[in-house]
Amino acid sequence: METKVLVVMGSRSDLPAMEGCMKQLDDFKIGYEVRVLSAHRTPNEVIKLSSEAKNRGIKVIIAAAGGAAHLAGVIASSTPLPVIGIPMQTSALGGMDSLLSTVQMPQGVPVATVAIGKAGARNAAILACQMIGLADEAVQKTIEDFKKEQAENVLAQSIVE
Amino acid sequence: METKVLVVMGSRSDLPAMEGCMKQLDDFKIGYEVRVLSAHRTPNEVIKLSSEAKNRGIKVIIAAAGGAAHLAGVIASSTPLPVIGIPMQTSALGGMDSLLSTVQMPQGVPVATVAIGKAGARNAAILACQMIGLADEAVQKTIEDFKKEQAENVLAQSIVE
Amino acid sequence: METKVLVVMGSRSDLPAMEGCMKQLDDFKIGYEVRVLSAHRTPNEVIKLSSEAKNRGIKVIIAAAGGAAHLAGVIASSTPLPVIGIPMQTSALGGMDSLLSTVQMPQGVPVATVAIGKAGARNAAILACQMIGLADEAVQKTIEDFKKEQAENVLAQSIVE
Amino acid sequence: METKVLVVMGSRSDLPAMEGCMKQLDDFKIGYEVRVLSAHRTPNEVIKLSSEAKNRGIKVIIAAAGGAAHLAGVIASSTPLPVIGIPMQTSALGGMDSLLSTVQMPQGVPVATVAIGKAGARNAAILACQMIGLADEAVQKTIEDFKKEQAENVLAQSIVE
Amino acid sequence: METKVLVVMGSRSDLPAMEGCMKQLDDFKIGYEVRVLSAHRTPNEVIKLSSEAKNRGIKVIIAAAGGAAHLAGVIASSTPLPVIGIPMQTSALGGMDSLLSTVQMPQGVPVATVAIGKAGARNAAILACQMIGLADEAVQKTIEDFKKEQAENVLAQSIVE
Amino acid sequence: METKVLVVMGSRSDLPAMEGCMKQLDDFKIGYEVRVLSAHRTPNEVIKLSSEAKNRGIKVIIAAAGGAAHLAGVIASSTPLPVIGIPMQTSALGGMDSLLSTVQMPQGVPVATVAIGKAGARNAAILACQMIGLADEAVQKTIEDFKKEQAENVLAQSIVE
Amino acid sequence: METKVLVVMGSRSDLPAMEGCMKQLDDFKIGYEVRVLSAHRTPNEVIKLSSEAKNRGIKVIIAAAGGAAHLAGVIASSTPLPVIGIPMQTSALGGMDSLLSTVQMPQGVPVATVAIGKAGARNAAILACQMIGLADEAVQKTIEDFKKEQAENVLAQSIVE
Amino acid sequence: METKVLVVMGSRSDLPAMEGCMKQLDDFKIGYEVRVLSAHRTPNEVIKLSSEAKNRGIKVIIAAAGGAAHLAGVIASSTPLPVIGIPMQTSALGGMDSLLSTVQMPQGVPVATVAIGKAGARNAAILACQMIGLADEAVQKTIEDFKKEQAENVLAQSIVE
Repeated sequence: METKVLVVMGSRSDLPAMEGCMKQLDDFKIGYEVRVLSAHRTPNEVIKLSSEAKNRGIKVIIAAAGGAAHLAGVIASSTPLPVIGIPMQTSALGGMDSLLSTVQMPQGVPVATVAIGKAGARNAAILACQMIGLADEAVQKTIEDFKKEQAENVLAQSIVE
Repeated sequence: METKVLVVMGSRSDLPAMEGCMKQLDDFKIGYEVRVLSAHRTPNEVIKLSSEAKNRGIKVIIAAAGGAAHLAGVIASSTPLPVIGIPMQTSALGGMDSLLSTVQMPQGVPVATVAIGKAGARNAAILACQMIGLADEAVQKTIEDFKKEQAENVLAQSIVE
Repeated sequence: METKVLVVMGSRSDLPAMEGCMKQLDDFKIGYEVRVLSAHRTPNEVIKLSSEAKNRGIKVIIAAAGGAAHLAGVIASSTPLPVIGIPMQTSALGGMDSLLSTVQMPQGVPVATVAIGKAGARNAAILACQMIGLADEAVQKTIEDFKKEQAENVLAQSIVE
Repeated sequence: METKVLVVMGSRSDLPAMEGCMKQLDDFKIGYEVRVLSAHRTPNEVIKLSSEAKNRGIKVIIAAAGGAAHLAGVIASSTPLPVIGIPMQTSALGGMDSLLSTVQMPQGVPVATVAIGKAGARNAAILACQMIGLADEAVQKTIEDFKKEQAENVLAQSIVE
Repeated sequence: METKVLVVMGSRSDLPAMEGCMKQLDDFKIGYEVRVLSAHRTPNEVIKLSSEAKNRGIKVIIAAAGGAAHLAGVIASSTPLPVIGIPMQTSALGGMDSLLSTVQMPQGVPVATVAIGKAGARNAAILACQMIGLADEAVQKTIEDFKKEQAENVLAQSIVE
Repeated sequence: METKVLVVMGSRSDLPAMEGCMKQLDDFKIGYEVRVLSAHRTPNEVIKLSSEAKNRGIKVIIAAAGGAAHLAGVIASSTPLPVIGIPMQTSALGGMDSLLSTVQMPQGVPVATVAIGKAGARNAAILACQMIGLADEAVQKTIEDFKKEQAENVLAQSIVE
Repeated sequence: METKVLVVMGSRSDLPAMEGCMKQLDDFKIGYEVRVLSAHRTPNEVIKLSSEAKNRGIKVIIAAAGGAAHLAGVIASSTPLPVIGIPMQTSALGGMDSLLSTVQMPQGVPVATVAIGKAGARNAAILACQMIGLADEAVQKTIEDFKKEQAENVLAQSIVE
Repeated sequence: METKVLVVMGSRSDLPAMEGCMKQLDDFKIGYEVRVLSAHRTPNEVIKLSSEAKNRGIKVIIAAAGGAAHLAGVIASSTPLPVIGIPMQTSALGGMDSLLSTVQMPQGVPVATVAIGKAGARNAAILACQMIGLADEAVQKTIEDFKKEQAENVLAQSIVE
């Protein structure tokens, strides 16, 4: 399976919160690669990784980080690919710090930000597939099926006795 | 020019803040269509518009709204296409209400959220082109040129006498 | 017992926080119906449900949701009935996201918002009965008795030895 | 015209922000009475006013206040009628203080809170009519016409050239 | 021992957080009386209690409440005595709601607000004694001794091996 | 007229916001002294001033500061007198920084905090008089008259035509 | 004069807010160099600049940026020198976004953060000189003189007639 | 080993959060001294300690405090040395109170603020060494080695199977 999504997280401690992201990509049968790299401890490697991503066939980069969460922004600075940012929940401020550090990007360098924490992790995978679906009808079909099935699941349980 | 981006805003009063979005799409030579529709005053039309977008050839939907900003979320509920949300600045809370209403989407229905206000408006256009670029090399090339030119502009003015 | 209140929640996981709402409606002997439906996963069903509510004899709709809580707003868009919104508590931001997404509605489409979480759940039931009481003296009497009893309970325990 | 709505505000300086409320009640042809009274400077008068409201034929009370906004809560403590609270915008904290003081009511005493400032002022009037409409078909019809007209106005201007 | 301080709390559930307040008053040998009364469920009793406090010889009133914390403000509206407000910690918003509802009082009716939760509970007792000390040299001496002892305790443990 | 209140502010730029405080003390015929001193630029003078205040006959100290507002806390550390803190409004954060820096004092050293900005400035004067009134019946009478007159003023203008 | 401080700002629009920084360095007779560079538009140049700073004789780097303010963090990732971050004030969120993005750095890569906006700009210069003073007695003497003069200025104006 | 860093914390309860600070200084072989002193309970000792620090050979002062965290600011007022402030996490507001009280210092008296809680504690030690490194090549070398090793550790674990 071709690697289409690059998932980067700022710390190994983000792995549990990020599991839903990888699981959703598995469910969608989208090839991906996971890297733990820090925008602050290994800036050159982060820039190298993102600069080369497009030529390696990557279509979308997902970046998860907490606190002064610069990972997604630094990656977005070095690639023409769309970058999705997941703000990690933090113990002191709940993730408000991660959210503002990820979403409030200056003109010229967008980060497609999703919800704080686990909901965002899973939604990042879905959003990546929606983007990939623009160039791949099978993937777009997968998303449509997913949405239908999701609605059916909600409806099947909608009545509370 | 084929219409590839659908830009929806919740109110005519959002037009000034959104000008940079349309201008950037013009600069990138991406066809787009602008609609003013309210998730709360015209829900059926919003759902109809987003349900039909894919079949009309739209690739990405950009939605801008303020306050309890449900527009992007309601659109995202009714299309397999990627949806970009721009939280409008608000006078009472600065746009914190718009931001949280746009980004904190539940599992299953992502909105790709960009910065509050004008920076977000312009970045939404760039992000839309990054997505379209996944299926269109010419557009991806445009983004690469844009990033290069942007860097050159910064560098040309980087020294302060 | 005639069904007068429609209680909708965005997710089955909201049920524990919502128990006080149903219990209070039981105590007030107000007929109600509970549905779990998502504004984002099943938008058409939500709109259908709220569009038909009035003709089915519903008087008030209570909607509970968390995060980018659009449920109450989407329901309010499709019914002339008063809609009460309960912002669910969230782990990342405590419910500030739910509160702002519920209360900051634009001109033309109000949501009667109550407190975050369990206090709001029970108060939504009381508020619904206050509204129903405008057309039903027996219900208004129930509210008056409730307020009296509540005050007596407080007074009976007001002295701390 | 019978007085059905009592509009109370904490200070004469709230009048400009509240104009939309009175104008909307005029448009809906709902009789109302406006009082400026302070929960903190004239507590007895506020309690007297709210205690007597039901017997004077009032159906709904609208209360607008800013800062430590106790007006709606104090009124709600002394009447079985539904009470709508409008948090006024404040210069220091934008109205976050007014919002939390109005909406975060304890179990037993709900305040139906609407948006901060002018949007909330107008929406309070609409919500009051939705409540009155439960006992008065003509008023409910007015709300339905209002929603239809509102949607038509949005649609008539939805296309941006 | 003469009762000089009236301690009022909005709910029996506030007792654990308030223990330090009563303990500190005991340590200072200041007579006090504790009442649980709700500004929203028993407004008349709260106003009666505060209106009569001065004539009963009370010097200072301490009021503790959470959420839309109106207790201190309502008490302050009905007495010429100084009123100290303690914002209780809340599960959803940490006590930010209680703090803003207590401190942001309008011109004319101050509440002397202390820190959120347990630190505030104990400090309210100290502040009450500082006020009482203005008319009672023995109490002022107690405060001076307390401050000296407190400093000595800190100094005795200031070196970390 | 005996000087009973010491008013300290952190900067000359706080004078306009503080005018209401001095005016209210004038109206109450309470002698006071105004000093501009910075907890950060002149710590020794601040501590000297507060240490000596009691022996100079001062009864209450009012301190106004903005941002990391330490003035009231530093004063409170060095006097047995009650200290009232006024959080000044700030351009970046509206005064939330000043408020939290003033009110969130640790156990043992209370600051009686009032509202942010001008409302707080005037209320600080009233609170100071309420404290002084504990030892001075004439002052307490002044407060009672003030409250009565204030209520009458509100009532005289309470009806809006 | 030897260049000891490198001042970097994210945008030319930060120049007015940063003037006090350069002016203070001039007053202290510390040589400095100013560059406008964006962490997001010119990441490689930022990393190059900070990587080479130490060898060029720079002692301290000051970085000012707003919104998702990554500039100071990215610089800190690439130099052993101390890095001072100034969060710029922003129109939507007042600078809370800039502050959290600058200060909430992960373990291993500190940014010495000062106040939002102009106060921070001037303080960054003072802090840089305090650091340089550790290796340069003349500079440390300058700081001591500055503090003395500052205190004298406050004292000279401390009495308000 | 010469004592170069003075670590002050506001309370013994801050010790667990501060362990990483002392451990990091140990790792860097920097001599330090730890004191528990309260800006509010022992202001004179705090000022004495900071006034004398420079003459005792201290190079940098680290101060940790929570809530209305004045410790770092009070220390900074009384020394020409650079002062690093660590905002402690708090149960009610997560540390937002500590952060704003520490960082929002007025012009003239900077505090070099690091992240809330444990990350900040460790980073304070690193920042102190970066400052000391300006006058001590061996220490600067230590920092360079630390950064290299840190990057290698991240890289060694960067691939997730």
